[in-house]
Amino acid sequence: MTRNIFLLIEYDGTKYEGWQSQKSGKTIEDVITGKLEMLTGEKIKLKGQGRTDAGVHALGQTANFVMESEWKLDQFHHNLNKVLPDDIYVKKIEETASDFSARFDAKSRTYEYRILSGDQRDPFLIQYSWYVSYRLDIKRMNDAARYLVGTHDFSSFRATLCSAKNPIRKLEKIEITKNGDMISILFKANAFLHHMVRNIVGLLVEIGYGRFEPVYAKEVLDYKDITKKSFKIWRKAPARGLFLIRVAYD
Amino acid sequence: MTRNIFLLIEYDGTKYEGWQSQKSGKTIEDVITGKLEMLTGEKIKLKGQGRTDAGVHALGQTANFVMESEWKLDQFHHNLNKVLPDDIYVKKIEETASDFSARFDAKSRTYEYRILSGDQRDPFLIQYSWYVSYRLDIKRMNDAARYLVGTHDFSSFRATLCSAKNPIRKLEKIEITKNGDMISILFKANAFLHHMVRNIVGLLVEIGYGRFEPVYAKEVLDYKDITKKSFKIWRKAPARGLFLIRVAYD
Repeated sequence: MTRNIFLLIEYDGTKYEGWQSQKSGKTIEDVITGKLEMLTGEKIKLKGQGRTDAGVHALGQTANFVMESEWKLDQFHHNLNKVLPDDIYVKKIEETASDFSARFDAKSRTYEYRILSGDQRDPFLIQYSWYVSYRLDIKRMNDAARYLVGTHDFSSFRATLCSAKNPIRKLEKIEITKNGDMISILFKANAFLHHMVRNIVGLLVEIGYGRFEPVYAKEVLDYKDITKKSFKIWRKAPARGLFLIRVAYD
Repeated sequence: MTRNIFLLIEYDGTKYEGWQSQKSGKTIEDVITGKLEMLTGEKIKLKGQGRTDAGVHALGQTANFVMESEWKLDQFHHNLNKVLPDDIYVKKIEETASDFSARFDAKSRTYEYRILSGDQRDPFLIQYSWYVSYRLDIKRMNDAARYLVGTHDFSSFRATLCSAKNPIRKLEKIEITKNGDMISILFKANAFLHHMVRNIVGLLVEIGYGRFEPVYAKEVLDYKDITKKSFKIWRKAPARGLFLIRVAYD
């Protein structure tokens, strides 16, 4: 009898080439799959809810896989964390309905982007935030963000290599908060296109700095141009400030 | 005319072979010295208040050096931080009395040791704490710590290679606090012997776990045995949980 197993995973993405399996084997998916195969003695196909880029972190990545093994799940959980590297931790493991898919049953994804803005670098936050040495105007960033919330064709904000068939996403919220020099931008959507969060953050930073007016976010959105030739481009935010916070299910 | 310059420095020690200059050049002192020499065009001798081991972090390391350069100090400060690597940051720079020594004028040093104790590892704290999977009894650790506070010969807790002539130190306080699964142990003393904090933390953890009784800390102290052959030994705490917090001057 097969069992469909759900995983909730936390990782520091600094040393990995992202979630999705690569020839190099240096991805989160490859590392976890290797340990699952070692513990079960079975060929395992781990199915993540979605990819994260190289250097992106996760507090709540989800995945599922099917195994025949009769391991007791609490022991399996304990042993899996024993053999995983220190920078990957499985927070929860449970048996789920045979037709459950971490990817297709996900109702929403929440990401957080962290920016350290001001005079002082912080040596301990290099891998966990984007440091910008200038002050950002949060009000301008909020004004720009408001144009993006809603159900839109986000073609202008997707990677040129993005493989999604449908560029329409429902962006439920963008929440910008500031605590000292640390700016946090929370994004919640049904799903995201490739590089969508990092492209939006990059634009919000340029707007907060004053290079573009807030309404430029709407203009870019309206171009719906994956080639990005219709408008002035900007630098996408680096991966290291991005955290996958939560994937929600019914 | 020469100027005596004081530096207050913050660093993530993960990638370095400690503070003190080595042939490899991969130490904090070497890296900062290289940048100071580049900016001044002078041969610089940077004098730290004391060493930190490989992997140990600092929020408040101090040092001083003499230069002839007429750089305006705020510009010098800005430029120094521009050329330093991301994991080293000079928080303060100021001209000080010509006879000031960051080392010999220091009145006290404060270190913090961080232990993550419990069922759950944290992938984001690997380089910034010691993870122990068992529960520690803080009361037992506090009872043990009380025997160590005061002016004592700390020979039993120093590294066999420690080069200090005098093994007597005035340990002003050991303060143990717990916040969720994170245990913080604060040490304040006039100065510390080599590996003294890490050896004490290692013993406190064994006592908190139950391998030794709290009074064992007093017995070990009383042996005053740098060879450590008089008593049962334990593992010294790893460098990664240790932070130099503050060096105090009059």
